[in-house]
Amino acid sequence: MSDYTIVALDAMGGDNAPSAMVQGAVDAVNANKAIKVILVGKEDVIKTELSSYTYPQDQIEIKNATEVIETAEHPVAAIKKKKDSSMVVGLHLVKDGEADAFVSAGNSGALLTGGLGIVGRIRGIERAPFGTLFPVKTGVALLADSGANVDCRPSHLVQFAKMGSIYMEKVVGVKNPRVAIVNVGAEEEKGNALVKETMPLLKECEDINFIGSIEARNIPNGDADVIICDGFVGNVILKLYEGLAGTLITVIKGGLMSTLRSKIGAALALPALKKTLKKFDASEYGGAPLLGLKGLVVKTHGSAKAGEVRNTIFQCVTFKEQQINEFIRDNIVIEKKKED
Amino acid sequence: MSDYTIVALDAMGGDNAPSAMVQGAVDAVNANKAIKVILVGKEDVIKTELSSYTYPQDQIEIKNATEVIETAEHPVAAIKKKKDSSMVVGLHLVKDGEADAFVSAGNSGALLTGGLGIVGRIRGIERAPFGTLFPVKTGVALLADSGANVDCRPSHLVQFAKMGSIYMEKVVGVKNPRVAIVNVGAEEEKGNALVKETMPLLKECEDINFIGSIEARNIPNGDADVIICDGFVGNVILKLYEGLAGTLITVIKGGLMSTLRSKIGAALALPALKKTLKKFDASEYGGAPLLGLKGLVVKTHGSAKAGEVRNTIFQCVTFKEQQINEFIRDNIVIEKKKED
Repeated sequence: MSDYTIVALDAMGGDNAPSAMVQGAVDAVNANKAIKVILVGKEDVIKTELSSYTYPQDQIEIKNATEVIETAEHPVAAIKKKKDSSMVVGLHLVKDGEADAFVSAGNSGALLTGGLGIVGRIRGIERAPFGTLFPVKTGVALLADSGANVDCRPSHLVQFAKMGSIYMEKVVGVKNPRVAIVNVGAEEEKGNALVKETMPLLKECEDINFIGSIEARNIPNGDADVIICDGFVGNVILKLYEGLAGTLITVIKGGLMSTLRSKIGAALALPALKKTLKKFDASEYGGAPLLGLKGLVVKTHGSAKAGEVRNTIFQCVTFKEQQINEFIRDNIVIEKKKED
Repeated sequence: MSDYTIVALDAMGGDNAPSAMVQGAVDAVNANKAIKVILVGKEDVIKTELSSYTYPQDQIEIKNATEVIETAEHPVAAIKKKKDSSMVVGLHLVKDGEADAFVSAGNSGALLTGGLGIVGRIRGIERAPFGTLFPVKTGVALLADSGANVDCRPSHLVQFAKMGSIYMEKVVGVKNPRVAIVNVGAEEEKGNALVKETMPLLKECEDINFIGSIEARNIPNGDADVIICDGFVGNVILKLYEGLAGTLITVIKGGLMSTLRSKIGAALALPALKKTLKKFDASEYGGAPLLGLKGLVVKTHGSAKAGEVRNTIFQCVTFKEQQINEFIRDNIVIEKKKED
């Protein structure tokens, strides 16, 4: 492959497509000479969007795809039927080695189905989880699985822990990341059937820094770097996180605007407050990769704006540079073979 | 039973016992002539605490119990071994009809074990969930199960939905409460195995206002009144709720104190802000009853202060007045018999 990191970007997926996608791509290539973006989607629409920007022409390319998979479509049916959709075409670019990564803000289920079906899992990886970075008091933590596999077996969670640990160390730069499993208490006997069966397997893993259970209340405090759970629980955590932060901020703004005195106070405090709350903005942290695939497939928020798209593209560069997939293949899978 | 509501209160359980328990009891009886509290625990300790308060002597009684179940103890072993603990003695008061309710801030697992073993489930009720009221933007919602049963079957969730609906309507006063099941998306095909199997059963229930799935992101917004899930997911929701609210408020306070300008603003805005945030204080909403038992057993937060203890005692009055248990027995169980 080239010295460039080549990112195929779904120009048609997400609430703010195509404008936010195109702007994010332009911002990314203007900031980094080693990135090439292939905008995948309806060529005429993309061309019109691109015409208002200045950017190095050799760093952005268009790959025409005439169909679009909508958010509400059934994932399996959509991937099967819409062979010329931006998502299917983009995933084939990764499969065929024409791109290092595919990024989409579109239908998550379809991206998962397509990622598994077109790009495929690394041999030996049983399930591919979404690994999502999210804000905590001390910085950022990784949640795996944040929604790809709603029913899991213990061996799946063990692989999530290993892949999450690798990602957190190599992409985010956290040395010897603390891995914890979501549980209802810290005591040894606590947990549902899945957690109780997984716990001894995680304790045996010598290649991760497993610190035991984490109660949900301690997640925002940053008590672990890699948070492991099945995709149902992970989805609940991630979405409650977003929803509650949003609601609380609305409630707080309402409180600040409730009296004249507090309005004046709010006006004075607002710049500092905004800066602090930005730390708790999930969109700052880029997208969620499907860990364990043969290529890099990344989901960004459906509501992603240009800034998040740009950050997600940057994330792909680190992913490639750190050779995450090669590392997963050479470590987790070889180890699994030894067991067999 | 008498015209009084008689509440047995575990004077020894919780982080702030016995002082917060005794003060909560005193505050409750001073506010309501129709309440009698039996303080259960070490008589001498309770007497010393009580001596500093003025209250109607006929409304507070002491029941001596020489042992205390600690928070870290194994629930089953503790209930079995410590026959003269405040928890076991208090639960027997309910079983024997000497009290209408037992309230404890102590070891949740022990309270669950003791509630099931000593007070017992209403015949036909398969599992007893904790039903916890928690703050949402529009007021308050009920979460069932918030932690009693970490592995559930579909029939359990259906009973949680029915009992939760009764509680929300009769105790909280929400007419025709909207019941929703926690899920990873709103679409028909979404869900883990448990949710997929439970969904059609809930749709068939004619006695509840089932509105379908709720995504975790919409819980804080108040999109449903009764939120149904297994106790593992419920515990994650409740604890993340508490933890994230706490972390965000700390982060916001930090932001407000970061510059001189914002400090002045914060001083002006603080009273209004505090008032608003009080709405999001879970302790305002009293305790979590174990729904479906033959008597009322209520868990308050381990960190409960006098105000929460008092509110929980008030809640027991409504529970008794509305004859919740009788209603559960006569409706849910008779219906179940019909099915058999």
